[in-house]
Amino acid sequence: MIAYDDFAKTKANYVPLSPISFLNRTADIFPDRLAVVYNDRQYSWGEVRTRCRRLASAIKNKGLGRNDTVSVLLHNTPEMFECHYGVPMAGCVLNTINTRLDADTIAYIIDHGESRLFLVDRELYSTARSALEKSKLKPEVIVIDDKSADTQPDVNWEDVIEYEAFLNDADPKFPGEHPEDEWQAIALNYTSGTTGRPKGVVYHHRGSYLMSMGTVASWAISMHPRYLYTVPMFHCNGWGHAWTMTLMAGTIICLRAFSPEAFFRLAGEHNITHFGGAPIILNMLAGADDSIKPTFTHSVKAMTAGAPPPASVLKAMAEAGFDVMHVYGLTETYGHVLQAAAQDDWAGKTIEEQADLQARQGVRFTNTEDVSVLDEQGQSVPHDGETIGEIMIRGNVVMKGYLKDKAETQNAFENGWFRSGDLGVIYPDGYIQLKDRAKDIIISGGENISSVEVENTLYKHPAIDVAAVVAMPDEKWGEVPCAFVELTAGESATEAEIIAFCKSNMAGFKRPKKVVFGELPKTATGKIQKKQLRETAKSLS
Amino acid sequence: MIAYDDFAKTKANYVPLSPISFLNRTADIFPDRLAVVYNDRQYSWGEVRTRCRRLASAIKNKGLGRNDTVSVLLHNTPEMFECHYGVPMAGCVLNTINTRLDADTIAYIIDHGESRLFLVDRELYSTARSALEKSKLKPEVIVIDDKSADTQPDVNWEDVIEYEAFLNDADPKFPGEHPEDEWQAIALNYTSGTTGRPKGVVYHHRGSYLMSMGTVASWAISMHPRYLYTVPMFHCNGWGHAWTMTLMAGTIICLRAFSPEAFFRLAGEHNITHFGGAPIILNMLAGADDSIKPTFTHSVKAMTAGAPPPASVLKAMAEAGFDVMHVYGLTETYGHVLQAAAQDDWAGKTIEEQADLQARQGVRFTNTEDVSVLDEQGQSVPHDGETIGEIMIRGNVVMKGYLKDKAETQNAFENGWFRSGDLGVIYPDGYIQLKDRAKDIIISGGENISSVEVENTLYKHPAIDVAAVVAMPDEKWGEVPCAFVELTAGESATEAEIIAFCKSNMAGFKRPKKVVFGELPKTATGKIQKKQLRETAKSLS
Repeated sequence: MIAYDDFAKTKANYVPLSPISFLNRTADIFPDRLAVVYNDRQYSWGEVRTRCRRLASAIKNKGLGRNDTVSVLLHNTPEMFECHYGVPMAGCVLNTINTRLDADTIAYIIDHGESRLFLVDRELYSTARSALEKSKLKPEVIVIDDKSADTQPDVNWEDVIEYEAFLNDADPKFPGEHPEDEWQAIALNYTSGTTGRPKGVVYHHRGSYLMSMGTVASWAISMHPRYLYTVPMFHCNGWGHAWTMTLMAGTIICLRAFSPEAFFRLAGEHNITHFGGAPIILNMLAGADDSIKPTFTHSVKAMTAGAPPPASVLKAMAEAGFDVMHVYGLTETYGHVLQAAAQDDWAGKTIEEQADLQARQGVRFTNTEDVSVLDEQGQSVPHDGETIGEIMIRGNVVMKGYLKDKAETQNAFENGWFRSGDLGVIYPDGYIQLKDRAKDIIISGGENISSVEVENTLYKHPAIDVAAVVAMPDEKWGEVPCAFVELTAGESATEAEIIAFCKSNMAGFKRPKKVVFGELPKTATGKIQKKQLRETAKSLS
Repeated sequence: MIAYDDFAKTKANYVPLSPISFLNRTADIFPDRLAVVYNDRQYSWGEVRTRCRRLASAIKNKGLGRNDTVSVLLHNTPEMFECHYGVPMAGCVLNTINTRLDADTIAYIIDHGESRLFLVDRELYSTARSALEKSKLKPEVIVIDDKSADTQPDVNWEDVIEYEAFLNDADPKFPGEHPEDEWQAIALNYTSGTTGRPKGVVYHHRGSYLMSMGTVASWAISMHPRYLYTVPMFHCNGWGHAWTMTLMAGTIICLRAFSPEAFFRLAGEHNITHFGGAPIILNMLAGADDSIKPTFTHSVKAMTAGAPPPASVLKAMAEAGFDVMHVYGLTETYGHVLQAAAQDDWAGKTIEEQADLQARQGVRFTNTEDVSVLDEQGQSVPHDGETIGEIMIRGNVVMKGYLKDKAETQNAFENGWFRSGDLGVIYPDGYIQLKDRAKDIIISGGENISSVEVENTLYKHPAIDVAAVVAMPDEKWGEVPCAFVELTAGESATEAEIIAFCKSNMAGFKRPKKVVFGELPKTATGKIQKKQLRETAKSLS
């Protein structure tokens, strides 16, 4: 055997993969370039790195180190961005908490994640305080005193440390730690399961590095993107874009709270090139008054995920000059792992046909090794666009596992695949379409009804702006579809009309048996809260 | 300690990095898209994968496997491209041999690399045959019977296997092996040292994967590039572009032998977006007659490396609508690791100033962790653009080491850096400029003279087309610069005029003491053979 294996790894030829390298490279090469913008604050890449170094140093000064958890309850501000580097540069694990969670759940996360430090936006201070009254652990609190917040609750400054003071006491020259092992944890993201307590999804440095690299390749991001951060960074670390945009030496425009007005103002002011958002966000943008929309000198690229975007939204966005890429992923996969990558011949199709093709979840990103849809026997379903199976994912951007939950971790990694829990089909062209979250399938008279399919039909109705369908218990059929809809301003439709519309636009048995009008409950990320709708539907049956 | 390390790697969440993944993804998603073009042959990505699978299967059928060496002596044809996947998909190591080498050196490589199989372009069959007469090992020979070659030497077909027959006997469904360890060897590239026999540089799958990812990010390659393969694939695996262009689902246009006519014909026919070439290649293109130049609908991106491009060439290329990126690397670093990445304020400078800035080797690629210029005490030189030190590189695209040469490997990886052997300076903006290969510095009267600096001055002379400067032994000064120049067609200049020009355009002591006119000897990759010039200079002194 020839001596190809006869080489030891050395510091010269082996470096653990970590997004920390992105910050160091970009700050070295483009130190004066605009990095992070927030209201009237602007930081260059050199300044951002110094702030991240100070943060890392301050965390180390608190006695924290490798594998210690730092929790944060923050909006999309520069401090939230800084945590994406400063925390791992101290060797610690960044735990971003959904800002819409209740104190009870936050307390659970603090305890389960064994938080050692807790960074909180002043606006969320009361919630954090309530959580810490309920939690067993009492991590020290650092408060970001953001004067631009709508509400400024009183803070007992003797109990907490103010963020800027925390940085000021630290060493701006601290180089930051680089993990010795690229499999080392970098982030802890809690995801709500179907039942019970949220699960702690653990990311590693290798995965976050490769997620960024794969996003650049598959989203074809060019140098110096101007990225408007509409996706909350607490959600899969903002789809990893905090790291990706650093890699490409971009400019990150922070957005504390989304509104179409704020979006378009910042988008125009900074002539943005990229942003991301759930379909509901795109829907709000598409529906906004033209008077608030800036004129772009280029096509703005948007990544959308979290639900299949209705064809109507894709169409409206395309017409408004946005280049939307629909992607699919889960917290467990660091965010996006599938994309509706365009084929050459799509350009010749009608905008409706294109929208239908783009509404599919698609094919794997370059960061993803393989994806398949498997039946219950673990066999790939036929590529017929009809046979439903479970979407399975394999690759380096699949989580390490669920923190302190061996059973769930083992269950998730059955047979060499990560089980997404989502149901889908594969088309003859190899593109995957999500049919339902496993829990969203409606079983009516023994027939499976895809709630997504019913929703897509509802979206075709001219009066319907937002739609969601869930199962409603039914004595005869077991379950029947129940629709919740928001009507477009100025439009009207009756329940009977909508049911008739569905009946004539899809298999009759799939039509909703009930239609409820009114605003739908949504999460911080714009996802419709189906759990709540299911409870409402139950009470209506 | 919280249980972040308490997770085993599984097949679901850990996949060894390998460029083989690029081929599988691209062939899955874009099976019908044009992948490889050569004369009147065209292969889709589906077809290319099938051919690579056949090749891997055929190699396995010969009893080869992990860490067995497959040598190839091939031009830039589809078969050469296929070897970049078929060989590693059999678990083997691809050893691309420079087609300009003599039989004696090839025999050395065959023996030192322990070749088990030898793929040869028919045109090079006689050389291969002579090499195998000299070598101890006698690997089986596969001949690519390319009818488009200028010469078709007789082949004893009973002794060898014809490539297409080799593929036809193999399994088109063989999935190919994926390395179990990403540190496993993928390629063996011999590089000629200053003295003695060439050294065998070993690449691993991880490095080749990250090289491609980093190239996409730092060269900002968008989807579906149309790449004209002017760089020989035997040189650092064609700068890794065989793998990179697969990652981006590009179209690779093969070019058997470079000429400006062939280049522009193919470039126009395929409306290319990218290519690479040594400055000498760019020089030939810039100087070609306008009548053979196609009109491009876009700016064509060119990567140039191998020598600092003269400002005159960069200027001519920019004026012709080419977007040239100057990069720097070595065989030991998988190719390019530094790039003259543009800063925002360069756009406002004159084309001459831009050319000067772009002629520097620049800053690190995203595939490179760190680069520095160190003095003899291992300290970084001041960023003054003047103090010379050795260029040092660290990262995942640094070779495993030199095959069967522990002493040279250890020497190369001193103190946690790969020692490039090249001398350079760092400017205040952090950009590195190569001053000389260590062996190219001229020491005259105790003063160091950079041969590159003298060459750059020579290139400013309107009559000079190509220039090279080496040391000439001198009784009084020890060494003095000796210039070799090719004049531009139709121009003239005397030795005295050129020496006077240098004297008035740089420090007088650096001027050449002798100027030799005539065509310069060049390697297959267009590099000027300074070794030969040094011998000539010696004989002239």
